[in-house]
Formats: sequence, C-alpha cells, structure tokens
Amino acid sequence: MGLIIQKYGGTSVADLKRIQNVAKKVIKTCDQGNLVVVVLSAMAGVTDGLLNMAGQVTPSPDKRELDVLLATGEQTTAAILAMMLINMNYPAYSLLGYQANVITDREYGNARILEIGAQRIKEFLKKKAIVVIAGFQGCDIKGDITTLGRGGSDTSAVAIAAALDADICEIYTDVDGIYTADPNICKKARKLKAISYDEMLNMSSLGAKVLQIRSVSFAKKYNVPVHVRSSFSEEEGTMVVNEDSCMEQLVVSGVTHNKDEARITLKKVPDQPGIAAKIFSPIAEAGILVDMIIQNTRAGGQTDLTFTVPKADYKRAMEIEHKIAKEIAAEKVFGDKNIAKISVIGVGMKNHSGVASVMFNTLCRENINIIMISTSEIRISCVIEEKYAELAVQVLHTAFGLDENENI
Amino acid sequence: MGLIIQKYGGTSVADLKRIQNVAKKVIKTCDQGNLVVVVLSAMAGVTDGLLNMAGQVTPSPDKRELDVLLATGEQTTAAILAMMLINMNYPAYSLLGYQANVITDREYGNARILEIGAQRIKEFLKKKAIVVIAGFQGCDIKGDITTLGRGGSDTSAVAIAAALDADICEIYTDVDGIYTADPNICKKARKLKAISYDEMLNMSSLGAKVLQIRSVSFAKKYNVPVHVRSSFSEEEGTMVVNEDSCMEQLVVSGVTHNKDEARITLKKVPDQPGIAAKIFSPIAEAGILVDMIIQNTRAGGQTDLTFTVPKADYKRAMEIEHKIAKEIAAEKVFGDKNIAKISVIGVGMKNHSGVASVMFNTLCRENINIIMISTSEIRISCVIEEKYAELAVQVLHTAFGLDENENI
Repeated sequence: MGLIIQKYGGTSVADLKRIQNVAKKVIKTCDQGNLVVVVLSAMAGVTDGLLNMAGQVTPSPDKRELDVLLATGEQTTAAILAMMLINMNYPAYSLLGYQANVITDREYGNARILEIGAQRIKEFLKKKAIVVIAGFQGCDIKGDITTLGRGGSDTSAVAIAAALDADICEIYTDVDGIYTADPNICKKARKLKAISYDEMLNMSSLGAKVLQIRSVSFAKKYNVPVHVRSSFSEEEGTMVVNEDSCMEQLVVSGVTHNKDEARITLKKVPDQPGIAAKIFSPIAEAGILVDMIIQNTRAGGQTDLTFTVPKADYKRAMEIEHKIAKEIAAEKVFGDKNIAKISVIGVGMKNHSGVASVMFNTLCRENINIIMISTSEIRISCVIEEKYAELAVQVLHTAFGLDENENI
Repeated sequence: MGLIIQKYGGTSVADLKRIQNVAKKVIKTCDQGNLVVVVLSAMAGVTDGLLNMAGQVTPSPDKRELDVLLATGEQTTAAILAMMLINMNYPAYSLLGYQANVITDREYGNARILEIGAQRIKEFLKKKAIVVIAGFQGCDIKGDITTLGRGGSDTSAVAIAAALDADICEIYTDVDGIYTADPNICKKARKLKAISYDEMLNMSSLGAKVLQIRSVSFAKKYNVPVHVRSSFSEEEGTMVVNEDSCMEQLVVSGVTHNKDEARITLKKVPDQPGIAAKIFSPIAEAGILVDMIIQNTRAGGQTDLTFTVPKADYKRAMEIEHKIAKEIAAEKVFGDKNIAKISVIGVGMKNHSGVASVMFNTLCRENINIIMISTSEIRISCVIEEKYAELAVQVLHTAFGLDENENI
C-alpha cells in the first residue's frame, strides 16, 4: 500500500520477452495495492548502437543532436511497456522526459536535473494508472532534449521518487544486490542487506557498476530509500538507506578494487604556491579525470607529487606532464600502469580506531607493498602493485570479518 | 534567395550514405543564398519495423503508445542530418513535432494539424541556421505525441511551408515527378511540368504514391507551391500549383488506373428511404472504405445498388451484405474482384465538352465493356474488366493527345 518507483535497466528490457517479464512484475506490485511509476532504460545494446551510428557520421557529433538521437532508445521501451500493460488491461501511460517535466541544465550528454514538475505523473496516478517514464532523458527550459549520462536512468528514478515523495525506489538490474567485494575475485563475498548512502558513494568501483553515483547523492540529499535488486529473481536485494536505518553498523562494509587507473609522479617539484594549479589545469583542460592526489612535504623546498588517472588517458597525461615538468623545473616525471587501488569502506570506521592499522598489517603480512595511501572519513584506499589486487581483496575481506558474518 | 522547405522521404534517407546526399543537397540550396527548413521521414523500412515490433506485443496496440513508438523513426533521421550539417560547418538544429509546435488534434495515428507555432523555427532561421524537422509527428495541446498517418511527412512539410509563408515546398522522393499515366504500363507516359491541386486530388491512385492526399488539400487551402522531384537527380520534377499557375491547360492531364478494388452489387433493393443507410452503416462500422457508389432508378419500386471496396475487404463486405440483403429483402448479392477503375483527370474538362464521349468511344472501339461510371467535376472514372486495364490506359492516353505533346 504505497507509491513505488521501479527502475529497470537495459538487460531487464533487452527484448520483448524480458519487457513482458517486467510488465508482470509491475502488475504484481499493482495487484498488491500499490501505485507504480516505472522508469526504463533503453534495451541493452541500443544506446551503444546509436552511439555507433553517430560515430559513423562524425567522431565528434554535436552534443545537442546526439541527445536527440540517444533519447529514442528509452522512448521505444517506454512505449512498448505501456502498450503491454494496456493490453493486459492495466491503464498505463508513457511519459518522455519533457512530458514528465524532468527539467535539466543544458549540459548535453551529462545534464543535471534542476527540478521535476510532477503534475502529469500525479494526474495519471490519481486515475490509478501506471506511469511509464523514459529514463536517462530530460529537457532544458526551452524543451530541448538532454540526457543524464551513462546510468542516468538511475538518477531519473531517484529524482522522480524524491519529487513524488515515494515510499521506495526499486532499482531492478542484472545483479542481485551490493556485495562486500567483487564475487568474481573473492569467493567469500556476501550480499549486504543494507548499506548507507555514504558507503555507496565511496564504493565507486564496486557501486558504479550497479548504480550511477549521482543517483546515490540524489537519494542521500532527499533521503530516498533505494532497493537494488535483480529483475530475474524474487529475492530481496540490498537497501541503500541513510546511516541510521542500517540495522547493524559494521566497521567495514566492503572491500573494493580498481585496476583502471595509472599513477604519475613528478619528482622534486619546487614547493611553492601555484605549482599544483600549473600541474593539474592542463590535465583538467584535456578532460582527464584525476582520482587520487598525494603530496608529501619534503626537505629543501622541493616535494614529490603523485596522482592517478584512468589507464586510457595515461599516455596523454604523461605527455602533458613532461611539458609541465620542464616549465616548472621539476626533476623528473615517471609513472606506472601496473597498479591497483584497494579500498575498505564503512561508516563504522568513524567510531572505530584501528581500521587503518588492520589494513596495513594485513597487507604487510602478505608482503604487499603500499605505494600510495589516501583516506576519507569512511574509506581507506591503498595503491598497490596490480598483480596483488585479488590477494589483497581476499585477505582484507577475511581480516575485517566479512567472511564469517552470516547476518550482514 | 528565398525560404525553401525541402521534404525528403524514406528512400531518400534510407541509410547514412543517402542522408549524406541529402545534406549535400541542403547545403547547395543554402549556398545559393536561401534559408532552408528540412522535413524528414524515417529511414525506409523503419516505420514498418516499429509497427512489426508493436504487432508482436499485441495485434491492436494502444494508439497513443504506438505514436510514441513510431515517432522515434523521424527523431533519428532528424538528429543524424542535423549532426551531419553541423559537422560540415553549417549551423543546424533538429526540432521534433512538439518542439516545432506542430499542434494536432488527439486522433492518434491519423492526427490533423490544427496550427503550427513557428516561433522556434523563425528564431533559428534568423540566425541563418538550417532547421531540420522530424516529419510525420506533432503533439496535442497537452504535449502528447501524435502522428499524421502514412505519408504524413508530406503534410508536415506543406503545413510548415504554409505557416512560414515559404516560397516553395520541395518534396524529394524516389520518383521524378507526376506522370500522365503509370509508366510501368504505359510506355508513352510523360512527366508533367505542372499539375493543379485539384487534378492531383483526383489522381488518387497515381498521386497517392507520390504525395499524401491530405498534403495536397493543405497546399491548395494555403496556396503553397509544391515541387515534386527526385532526390537522386538534379532534374526538375512536377510543380503542383493552383489552376491559374498552370501554363497550359490540358483538357486531360492524366489517365490513372486502380486494380485494388472489388465490386459488390445488391439486386432488386426496395427503393425506399433509409435503405442506403442500412446497407452502408455496417460496412463503415467494420472500418471498410467504400469508394464508388452507383444507384440507378429502376421501375417497380426496386433498384440495383453497386459499390466498390478494397479487394482485401471484399470477403468481409460480402458476408455483411449477405446478411443485410436478407434483412431488407433484396433479391440477390453478387460481386466481382476482377475489375479495374480507369480515370481520366483534367481541370480543362470543365470548359470542354465531349471528354466523356471520347472516353466511352475509345473504350468501345477496343470492345471494352464499361461496368460502372462515376464522375466528378474534373474526373471521369469507368470500372471495366481487370484484364483490359493496361490496354484501356494506353488507348485513352493516346486518345487524349498525351502521347504526342512534347510540351506538357
């Protein structure tokens, strides 16, 4: 007896048979006395197909027009699902981004939602109809189509849940929840019953495969309870909720790894104001995302500065920094692509000391050398040699008691 | 130096290479100093593919949702062409039906345009940009997507030309103009330089393959000069204009044939008020389109009534009429699928007597029996045996001087 937002990802609507399966799930939720708003992605592969088509036109398609093209993917699935529901005698209406009044900024391809005017959705819900919304898309104030970036349907769903003050936002996907580690490399990984927004935000590598990170910020801001679950089973998934709603606060909720980054170090950089800006501005201008930055004070007015970039951008970033190094008279630039970042995450960390020492000791015991360290309030990340990534995740998973606990 | 609307049909945008060809044509027109608004159909086959997908969901998909689905076809081509133009350094903007403010009634699948608010189009034209509009689609006052029926992009183009008071509306298609007869069966058929709106409206069978009939009514109402031409050549096509603009008024401009109809006759129908309604209401309710209706007064308070229906609906129509015949005590129902309708069309007919007698005498000379006759102000149609259709077109084409005239 409530208002439920259900979001189905690309693999859940990959073909007509799977959309039929979605229709059945939606109807079941209705029959239990709920009002349902469905948010859909494009069929798996369709967005890539459209990107490919645009790529054949030009390597750098106009962003406004690319969004018009990409928006057809979700338009198709929304219309198809609405048709199916109507055909099964459940009143339903599709709404595209502009019709659902998902107003965004004009940042084509990666637009941010400014507001959602939920009038039409509410109007349909009042009639007890099912509303099927094309995810991933919105429009600017002029009515031009925008898209919200990869995984944007998650953010559509959470934003709509917030606008409607829904009881829950269910994210149906091809995994059955959030795990304590990647089950592919850690056999003892377990599904979490609940995880806090902050933990989810810090689990970038594990979490981003499941939920668009921006949707989690949105959920946190508006306190929308999110249920991540599989569209192929009836099993409960993982609740993403605020910290207070997590029944049990584990010290560490998960161990993640990321092998997609490379490290670049500038040695003996003059330690003076403005140097960091000189090093990072050209990187930012080149559109390269920097993740970790480590700078250690050093004697003699000089310092070493290390940062990580996506492996795909490593070569470009190195070229840029070689130039910069000359300009600022740094001694040397060197880097390494064979690294992995291992993180332990847990809101419990805030109240428990010793997490860092357990982590370092555990890695030490396996003779794994720590190259870089960075921390946030609820996360500790270590960069290590890539070849030790799997081992590191496994031993940390055990060390933080994630293997044994049956009641996570 | 003018404002030109160019509409490209499905075969003209069938793949990226052909859309590239369209881009070149558009640019050429711009380079000649014109402002250009392009109206596009979906890629050939795409609309049928979408209909097929909907057909897999249900044999009778919800009409509102079907329009949402179908609209993706034109959305795709509009975005792709705009991308190409921008990539060739010509500023361009795509506009979907709702963005171009093509406001229609709520008759999903066959909506009629109520008005076009051309503000955004004009705004872009002021910036000397090319505007690329998704044809076939509009929206109702609530912003719900509607489509204009098969060939609806023609009507989109003509309506936009009217709203913008454009100098000309060019319809680019896979034929190079309007012919005096179907060149496939009449070797001596010639392309017309010009044809009047009324002639075009009466050329249903020949004309409808080239232009959506409704677009011709629209062009007539707003006096929009329409140029039907091939997108695969530079050759001039046929101008569809008002009667006064036709340089030379031929008595007969074309001979058309239609083999898609069947004839049904009710014999000895009581000649009393209300009978016609009883005969045709159930046919209309079954969604069967009746073309010709012929009733002759007859002695003895009884009459024979004959009408034509599409061949595909013949069996259903016969079943219906057999029931009706019993109810109204008609003597007999019989029909014939092996018929063809041959028409001669020409605005000149209004001022020239004798067209009918030339037609009848010509058919008589070939021993072709006339089964039914019907006339409009500028058209005479005869139903004959199907096997004589080609012969009839050829001899009439010659009889009305269409073969010889080099300056049509």
